[in-house]
Amino acid sequence: MPKEKLSIIKIGGNIIEDETSLNAFLKLFSQIEGKKILVHGGGKRATHVATKLGIESKMVHGRRITDLKTLEVITMVYGGLVNKNIVAKLQALQTNAIGLSGADINSIKSEKRASKEIDYGFVGDVKEVAYDSIDKLINAGFIPVFCAITHDGNGQLLNTNADTITSQVAIGMSKVYKTSIYYCFELEGVLRDINDKKSVIRRINLNTYQELLDAGIVTEGMLPKLENCFNALKKGVHEVNLGNTAMLTNENKNFTTITL
Amino acid sequence: MPKEKLSIIKIGGNIIEDETSLNAFLKLFSQIEGKKILVHGGGKRATHVATKLGIESKMVHGRRITDLKTLEVITMVYGGLVNKNIVAKLQALQTNAIGLSGADINSIKSEKRASKEIDYGFVGDVKEVAYDSIDKLINAGFIPVFCAITHDGNGQLLNTNADTITSQVAIGMSKVYKTSIYYCFELEGVLRDINDKKSVIRRINLNTYQELLDAGIVTEGMLPKLENCFNALKKGVHEVNLGNTAMLTNENKNFTTITL
Repeated sequence: MPKEKLSIIKIGGNIIEDETSLNAFLKLFSQIEGKKILVHGGGKRATHVATKLGIESKMVHGRRITDLKTLEVITMVYGGLVNKNIVAKLQALQTNAIGLSGADINSIKSEKRASKEIDYGFVGDVKEVAYDSIDKLINAGFIPVFCAITHDGNGQLLNTNADTITSQVAIGMSKVYKTSIYYCFELEGVLRDINDKKSVIRRINLNTYQELLDAGIVTEGMLPKLENCFNALKKGVHEVNLGNTAMLTNENKNFTTITL
Repeated sequence: MPKEKLSIIKIGGNIIEDETSLNAFLKLFSQIEGKKILVHGGGKRATHVATKLGIESKMVHGRRITDLKTLEVITMVYGGLVNKNIVAKLQALQTNAIGLSGADINSIKSEKRASKEIDYGFVGDVKEVAYDSIDKLINAGFIPVFCAITHDGNGQLLNTNADTITSQVAIGMSKVYKTSIYYCFELEGVLRDINDKKSVIRRINLNTYQELLDAGIVTEGMLPKLENCFNALKKGVHEVNLGNTAMLTNENKNFTTITL
């Protein structure tokens, strides 16, 4: 029996921080047919709240360190304010959303990243996705909305990258569904020419990816994102799409689709 | 067919604000047999965070006014920090909790309280409990953990009293279950003599309640709580229990049980 399609859409700070963009996106999201999951990052709002609370952002080698106070702010802002407001807005669009962290229904278990050169603090690397439990929610008619928080199974919440949550949840759900990831970002897709925002590469697969790498077309910023996409594909995800939110409409076909 | 039992336990700030009390309570909660729901208030933590963020608590005639900034703090602290930490702690106790606001799965719809003499701000009075949706979670093996936030169905979150959420959820679930409410508070139960903390009245029903009223034994602070209990009982709740968390153990029988 062919697997049913499941769409997993990820939005980041650029959409969440702007009320108009968020409302427009949620309208698009509510209109997506079939089973679906939303994953949201947090954006700079947590930093604003942290600053107001007098908590300094600690950066080491350009990377943010999640100490206990920062984790509390992240849990408040992403797990509370952002997540519950998105859920309430989706309900107003007749979309029966349910907000989740990785602790809820034990959906995403992670492991605190070990300190090597850098101690990242309360940051979790995903270990296990309870795809069967998540599927129970979906089959009950609920639309999961994940914030970027996981837990270690021993009572500790952990901060986890939203792109990683997206790909890990997609990999897990691929046991039951034909999964498509939609990473919404500012660009219309992966660009052939970084100075030409319309030069979207429509399709990338392992072969053409190598050509793009050889030709030096894949930029440093895009490299880890694409590597992450191929990793998800190799682990069972059907396709990964990169573009702005317009890719969720049926009219626009100008975005990047990645397959193996 | 006799209805299956469902226990709905409510805890307030006194337990939530003290890590040791919270951990001890959650252990008791995890050991309760059968189907169950947890409802938590918030306590003073939101006030602390609001103060740090420079948001003044507005009080009119001794009642807090929930303006938009205060609602944001409540959503962060109750919906995020407190709720997700409780869920993570329950998961560590092998209790498959799922944190919910009233917006999630449209579980508790409310109506913004109309301004009369006082404009309470973003405060919601419960209108509808989606007992069938909540029951889907319970039947999937998940334990709902409600924070005291509801929504109006039009995208607006609203602040709602946790005792009210408890009784309204219990009333809703009574369509499907034989529901017992357990209101955990500081005292061991309703006291015959306010100066004797051991003078717990074991059982109250409508007849004995009238006797207590006539004898002036029910104090002003307890009156609205008991009225609220009888209201829930009249609307289908099987029994309401009042006491400290020790009432959740099988050993202690010294708490107050209210029936019609």
